[in-house]
Amino acid sequence: MELLKNRILTDGRALNEQVLLVDSFLNHQVDPELMEQVGEEFAARFADAKIDRVVTIESSGIAPALMTALKLHVPMVIMKKQPSRILKEDTLQTEVFSFTKNAPFQLTVKAKFLPKGQRVLIIDDFLANGEAASGAIRLIEKAGGVVAGVGAVIAKVFQPGMANLKGAGYRVEVLAPVRRLDKDQIEFLEEKA
Amino acid sequence: MELLKNRILTDGRALNEQVLLVDSFLNHQVDPELMEQVGEEFAARFADAKIDRVVTIESSGIAPALMTALKLHVPMVIMKKQPSRILKEDTLQTEVFSFTKNAPFQLTVKAKFLPKGQRVLIIDDFLANGEAASGAIRLIEKAGGVVAGVGAVIAKVFQPGMANLKGAGYRVEVLAPVRRLDKDQIEFLEEKA
Repeated sequence: MELLKNRILTDGRALNEQVLLVDSFLNHQVDPELMEQVGEEFAARFADAKIDRVVTIESSGIAPALMTALKLHVPMVIMKKQPSRILKEDTLQTEVFSFTKNAPFQLTVKAKFLPKGQRVLIIDDFLANGEAASGAIRLIEKAGGVVAGVGAVIAKVFQPGMANLKGAGYRVEVLAPVRRLDKDQIEFLEEKA
Repeated sequence: MELLKNRILTDGRALNEQVLLVDSFLNHQVDPELMEQVGEEFAARFADAKIDRVVTIESSGIAPALMTALKLHVPMVIMKKQPSRILKEDTLQTEVFSFTKNAPFQLTVKAKFLPKGQRVLIIDDFLANGEAASGAIRLIEKAGGVVAGVGAVIAKVFQPGMANLKGAGYRVEVLAPVRRLDKDQIEFLEEKA
């Protein structure tokens, strides 16, 4: 998605080989028009995937996921990050390790918002190690749903998340795949037309 | 907003005198079309308020705030809930007490996303005690901004938040003001036409 890549080059900033700062338009200050275009792009890419609902993980995935759900005319479900293991009735939970916070959290969702047999699209802002996406997949499949795809606004493809998900047979769409980062350097993966 | 009130009566559920559950369309499973209409309603109500940006508090305010910002053609800023007092350079922080979690958190925002002199609209899903909104107001005013209004999708007007904000001179718009709750009973405030 050229518009997004250009925006990352203009307003994003690579702090080092690992960290890409995009908090001026994606996950702290958010550009709603860009999010609408991101939603349109995901909806177009997954138009043939018969998506019943979009799932995301709080909180920076909510903006792109909401716009994708709007364009696909399906509900959006926000999986919550709970610090504890307090498990209520009708709740699905799985432990996820956050590399950003260097601590685990309990990814949590009410089972009734993942009805059996539904085709679910996971949307998140970043795909890096894939821990959050894998946790979401475990919960969706535990609920009897089908993971019809994973969409990431940005993927750091030099980290194992994207390859692992594709290796496990999941369809992954990335709007801005980043091949390499270094201080003030951002390189995207060349994509086939 | 009749559409929203009807949805609350149909799909919401009062658990007791304090708790209104709307997690099937507002803050866990989210109806994107309803959020779009909520955004349009806030944009119409604040059309004369010369809004420069919309601010919300993660994470359940993000969906209505994003749609409001889209309709007003302004950026949206997500204030973060930090557990600790780790204060980075260029970061504004204030302590807010969460009655839901019965614990304080540090409401945090990068100062550069609240430029001086800007007219800011705060949007959140719920207004109850007004702690989160008051914290957001403190940060916006500390940054040299003007709080041009507070918009809540739902307000529990029997709790002090709405009255306190109005008493302090802030403009408050509530799409569904709830006058009274009791087990399986929801009563809205009558509004002047």
